[in-house]
Amino acid sequence: MGKFDMDQLRKQMDDVNLKLLELINERATVVQKIGEIKSKQSMNRFDPVRERDMIDKIISNNHGPFENSTIEHIFKEIFKASLELQEDDHRKALLV
Amino acid sequence: MGKFDMDQLRKQMDDVNLKLLELINERATVVQKIGEIKSKQSMNRFDPVRERDMIDKIISNNHGPFENSTIEHIFKEIFKASLELQEDDHRKALLV
Repeated sequence: MGKFDMDQLRKQMDDVNLKLLELINERATVVQKIGEIKSKQSMNRFDPVRERDMIDKIISNNHGPFENSTIEHIFKEIFKASLELQEDDHRKALLV
Repeated sequence: MGKFDMDQLRKQMDDVNLKLLELINERATVVQKIGEIKSKQSMNRFDPVRERDMIDKIISNNHGPFENSTIEHIFKEIFKASLELQEDDHRKALLV
């Protein structure tokens, strides 16, 4: 194993990073649509039961190498960012 | 917009979550391979220059809805978890 393998692996990593970026933003778009519906129906944007349900579905499909606790931590960061995005959208809507 | 749209969006969200899970773990597998090479060549596992380079590549491809700062935050969490995974692998290798 040498420089060639390392370059190949780094290239692969960059590709995965961009696919991840695309999916994280795709998820954010879905979150925004859900936020719009919730806003119209005056529903609470934070839904801990739905969040737990999502985490459970994700964890039950986790075959590593990341541990369940790590996967849960990463997704909770994504959820938190998504909630902030919905709140920003809501604030902007109120300002119109 | 009603219950039907919400159910559809939630289904879409669950699908994206599982694709994200798959990619995050695919990334972790690449990280482990890189960790093995680095271990054999006694290279430092944490490489801030490479990390900055990855973040820059990701950010330059970010078209939202998430802000660059949010994307950077999420990826740094993934990087941190990846480094911990490499360190676990290294500790296990030392124990063999």
